[in-house]
Amino acid sequence: MLHILFLFALVLTPASHAADFCVAKLKGAGGVAGYACRDPAKVTAADFVFKGIVTSGNTTNIINAAVTPVFVQQFPALNGLGLSTARLDLAPGGVIPLHTHPAANEILVVTSGVIKAGFITSSSNKVYIATVTKGQVMVFPQGLLHFQLNAGKTAASAVVTFNSPEPGLQILDFALFANDFPTELITGTTFLEPAVVKKLKGVLGGTN
Amino acid sequence: MLHILFLFALVLTPASHAADFCVAKLKGAGGVAGYACRDPAKVTAADFVFKGIVTSGNTTNIINAAVTPVFVQQFPALNGLGLSTARLDLAPGGVIPLHTHPAANEILVVTSGVIKAGFITSSSNKVYIATVTKGQVMVFPQGLLHFQLNAGKTAASAVVTFNSPEPGLQILDFALFANDFPTELITGTTFLEPAVVKKLKGVLGGTN
Amino acid sequence: MLHILFLFALVLTPASHAADFCVAKLKGAGGVAGYACRDPAKVTAADFVFKGIVTSGNTTNIINAAVTPVFVQQFPALNGLGLSTARLDLAPGGVIPLHTHPAANEILVVTSGVIKAGFITSSSNKVYIATVTKGQVMVFPQGLLHFQLNAGKTAASAVVTFNSPEPGLQILDFALFANDFPTELITGTTFLEPAVVKKLKGVLGGTN
Amino acid sequence: MLHILFLFALVLTPASHAADFCVAKLKGAGGVAGYACRDPAKVTAADFVFKGIVTSGNTTNIINAAVTPVFVQQFPALNGLGLSTARLDLAPGGVIPLHTHPAANEILVVTSGVIKAGFITSSSNKVYIATVTKGQVMVFPQGLLHFQLNAGKTAASAVVTFNSPEPGLQILDFALFANDFPTELITGTTFLEPAVVKKLKGVLGGTN
Amino acid sequence: MLHILFLFALVLTPASHAADFCVAKLKGAGGVAGYACRDPAKVTAADFVFKGIVTSGNTTNIINAAVTPVFVQQFPALNGLGLSTARLDLAPGGVIPLHTHPAANEILVVTSGVIKAGFITSSSNKVYIATVTKGQVMVFPQGLLHFQLNAGKTAASAVVTFNSPEPGLQILDFALFANDFPTELITGTTFLEPAVVKKLKGVLGGTN
Amino acid sequence: MLHILFLFALVLTPASHAADFCVAKLKGAGGVAGYACRDPAKVTAADFVFKGIVTSGNTTNIINAAVTPVFVQQFPALNGLGLSTARLDLAPGGVIPLHTHPAANEILVVTSGVIKAGFITSSSNKVYIATVTKGQVMVFPQGLLHFQLNAGKTAASAVVTFNSPEPGLQILDFALFANDFPTELITGTTFLEPAVVKKLKGVLGGTN
Repeated sequence: MLHILFLFALVLTPASHAADFCVAKLKGAGGVAGYACRDPAKVTAADFVFKGIVTSGNTTNIINAAVTPVFVQQFPALNGLGLSTARLDLAPGGVIPLHTHPAANEILVVTSGVIKAGFITSSSNKVYIATVTKGQVMVFPQGLLHFQLNAGKTAASAVVTFNSPEPGLQILDFALFANDFPTELITGTTFLEPAVVKKLKGVLGGTN
Repeated sequence: MLHILFLFALVLTPASHAADFCVAKLKGAGGVAGYACRDPAKVTAADFVFKGIVTSGNTTNIINAAVTPVFVQQFPALNGLGLSTARLDLAPGGVIPLHTHPAANEILVVTSGVIKAGFITSSSNKVYIATVTKGQVMVFPQGLLHFQLNAGKTAASAVVTFNSPEPGLQILDFALFANDFPTELITGTTFLEPAVVKKLKGVLGGTN
Repeated sequence: MLHILFLFALVLTPASHAADFCVAKLKGAGGVAGYACRDPAKVTAADFVFKGIVTSGNTTNIINAAVTPVFVQQFPALNGLGLSTARLDLAPGGVIPLHTHPAANEILVVTSGVIKAGFITSSSNKVYIATVTKGQVMVFPQGLLHFQLNAGKTAASAVVTFNSPEPGLQILDFALFANDFPTELITGTTFLEPAVVKKLKGVLGGTN
Repeated sequence: MLHILFLFALVLTPASHAADFCVAKLKGAGGVAGYACRDPAKVTAADFVFKGIVTSGNTTNIINAAVTPVFVQQFPALNGLGLSTARLDLAPGGVIPLHTHPAANEILVVTSGVIKAGFITSSSNKVYIATVTKGQVMVFPQGLLHFQLNAGKTAASAVVTFNSPEPGLQILDFALFANDFPTELITGTTFLEPAVVKKLKGVLGGTN
Repeated sequence: MLHILFLFALVLTPASHAADFCVAKLKGAGGVAGYACRDPAKVTAADFVFKGIVTSGNTTNIINAAVTPVFVQQFPALNGLGLSTARLDLAPGGVIPLHTHPAANEILVVTSGVIKAGFITSSSNKVYIATVTKGQVMVFPQGLLHFQLNAGKTAASAVVTFNSPEPGLQILDFALFANDFPTELITGTTFLEPAVVKKLKGVLGGTN
Repeated sequence: MLHILFLFALVLTPASHAADFCVAKLKGAGGVAGYACRDPAKVTAADFVFKGIVTSGNTTNIINAAVTPVFVQQFPALNGLGLSTARLDLAPGGVIPLHTHPAANEILVVTSGVIKAGFITSSSNKVYIATVTKGQVMVFPQGLLHFQLNAGKTAASAVVTFNSPEPGLQILDFALFANDFPTELITGTTFLEPAVVKKLKGVLGGTN
């Protein structure tokens, strides 16, 4: 029997290189479709587990909130899987300011508390706003401005998942006011007045 | 000013038909890429919210567990978004039997309890098993056999998300024993003995 | 010879239904992947030509500029081709305010004048700004905030092309101030003060 | 037991709409991604079987050869599967003239005889030619001009498979000479002389 | 004339780097989208030909059958072409046990003999079974359990093609019984009894 | 305030690795999906600008025309953006001979003069011809033979854009007559006579 078995295994062996997964080798800049794969023989079960969002992010900050991303850079097993996730924590009064994910749609599941969230369409500037509570689900289409805020009196949290291992996260205020984007260009391309821009640059650390 | 504004709006109006979303019109069989879109003008914020997995699925059954899918058929807003989700509930002793999702990768976040989960690669038949607790994350590559079971003493639950609005769910035992798949063909293609097959067909409602 | 030819044609006829193109039937809401195809037998060469951006858009407006989109809704032949275009016209002092295309990358070719353009990354809030003149080319990655403005003393124009027939166009100021997005939510999610929001709503026609 | 089973089935039922297949409803022009799906409940095993290439195509024609396509129009089960096939039959002296498949790569397996085949790259106009015999495999990248001819003394045949249900088939001579493409334009865009064009139009049924 | 020609060539030269093909450099673990390309200048016609499935695989084994894969690892020219193939050989009584391809749809063409084949849907556990003979074609959707067996009295063979260069091959019995998957977990996730599991582990070389 | 700000930045930092762009590192042969990315920290605004098609290509050649490609090899910022462009220049009497782009659809905008252009379908060998003037747009589906010629009395030019950074460019006459494709095979696969082939090989530099 063993001899026969050996033959059988032999015949099927060539399939043994098929790519079931491609855990990222993060060093190096990667390519268009993601990162190179680590040697599969050295990948263990622990590589498929991520423990970094068990506890709340630190919400002692200006927005009383935290976004803790679990993208491919944090969780290399996501490389090539077309998925990533993040934990949102919103202390009372907390808010995730208007932002977009340039490269992914988003699905949100509330894990505690009450969250008001909304997005604005590109086609008609229509605003869709809903209040969701623990266990409820909401979706946000790719690339559209959206926000989440705590609409209750206690801390709220949510798990969000994206259909890309690198969804991107562009927070409007950071994009405008937390860099060296010249005030003159900001006012010229937003209708905001210089004083408004200068003030927010002051708060968010921007220059120019 | 109003006159000038009107001209501006006019110039930009043609972009107003861009497809930010495509909430499914479920009637009709759909096409390769999903379902036809409902009239965007009649879509409201409520269409982007799903409330059906707030409470535990019913685990009073043979597996002491429940999978409650939130695929495009349950949540039409998922149409075209490349995402779906599901809630897993595992009473003590509960198990989601070996199964595959033919069309999607999966990311799991434990929302309560302790879950032992694993998957088997196609390339080397290697088994990757891990035990994950509340807040931990685990991934399962597309199309591979995998399972989840309650490894604790209390009820466990998880949110799983897929990178497809129609990931599919093929439960091994149901595929083999809960239909009219002829016993002779099952034994011939699995090495199981007829008595074993007949017994499981009896449990799971299969015939032939 | 004719008889032989007939046989040859017969053998090859079945291939005659392959989908070289799929000119959109715009009526109906379309589906995830675009619109249904018009009957190919009724499509003529004229369907593959678009004449609507020969002349400048009307720039007598608040931004001294015009974006004239040539998306699938304007040019149904683009359906399924993964491409669309638009003409930008910038009178002296003209500006295309900060905006994103949620679903496409963009390539711009200056056709007259001098244009200053820039985009902001999501990963580091870094601003990339360049001045481009007639015949020069610039690219803008998908979903990132960007702008174009006339940096010269004469009218400027450009052709931009997108890798999607429905790239979307979300103009920041319109998304914030030209709809019924409640002032309270705008201030809460942008750090802008109510007076600033109210004023811009006044200019752009917003309410609430 | 039955009662418990019923509950289990209930919990899992919602998944029962996942799209394992999408057999084409060929009537109607289809859309960008293929055809609408037939009602899955009415699809039978026979729909997944195609019997039309069991025997040789008729090679009594000008090329002593036949291409018998099995694209989605011939075999509706291919809709959405990203695959199609064709049977090539080459009588002694037979040739499949230079042609391209605009929308798919091709893999060829010789099923009888000896075939000489080749393709020309776009990047360097380099010609890759090989002679393959029964059981050997050869590939042809998408969109490149290629040919197959009988290099033996007996009939040859092959099965070719494409990574698209609608690969397209553009035979060079037919594209140039079997339609109303004006002779003046053909000569102007190919360097061929009018007499050459007129003669081939005569053979292949072209006009103008 | 030559001088003029030289200019023409010069103008067109820059296009000479376009990627018509990307023959895999197999050393190194590859990335999400496949392997790095070998230097195109060193690729020859022979690289596009594969001669390894000319003769039958060895069917003197426990299943009286052989699957000989021609995936990218065996045939590096497939890298990036979205296609792979395999040869099935079934001695009388031979069977390819229940298996899935996690990453591809499959099209089968019978090259000799009589094959009974079937697949089971994920959505309804419905079994689709057909008997196909030489020259007939059958398809198997991605990720679904399926089998092929010799339904005649003589050897049978088939060519199968996949719409991926790495379709994967997960044979159910090997995934369950040919590794160190703990018996306790197998019984817990399949309803099979320990004795059944132990016996098959014995046959297939499994432990634990 | 600064302290609080620091915390906020800390929380959001992990997202700072998302891949907004992937400017190609051209050295090395690349992979299936394009080239490896240059270090984003060393990319500057100038990398997103291409200045090489500001002036007309040299049209003093056999076709009185020039195609100047701006593919990823010329403009590395295009890597992964799904777009490329090219400038067409047509002196009076100039012509871009029949050619295909194996890997992309094409959209053309006339920037000066009058251009007659056409393409031939694969499905029915139907020819679609149109004359387009400055500012008009025309599309050409992927992989189909097409041409552009100057239909006016003055120089004409156009910008064409493709939905791939590597669309490929296969010029029919070059593929047939500007290499070592054996005359015997050309005549056998095109119906052209040896004398015609030999003459064009003489003009275009072919051998064999």
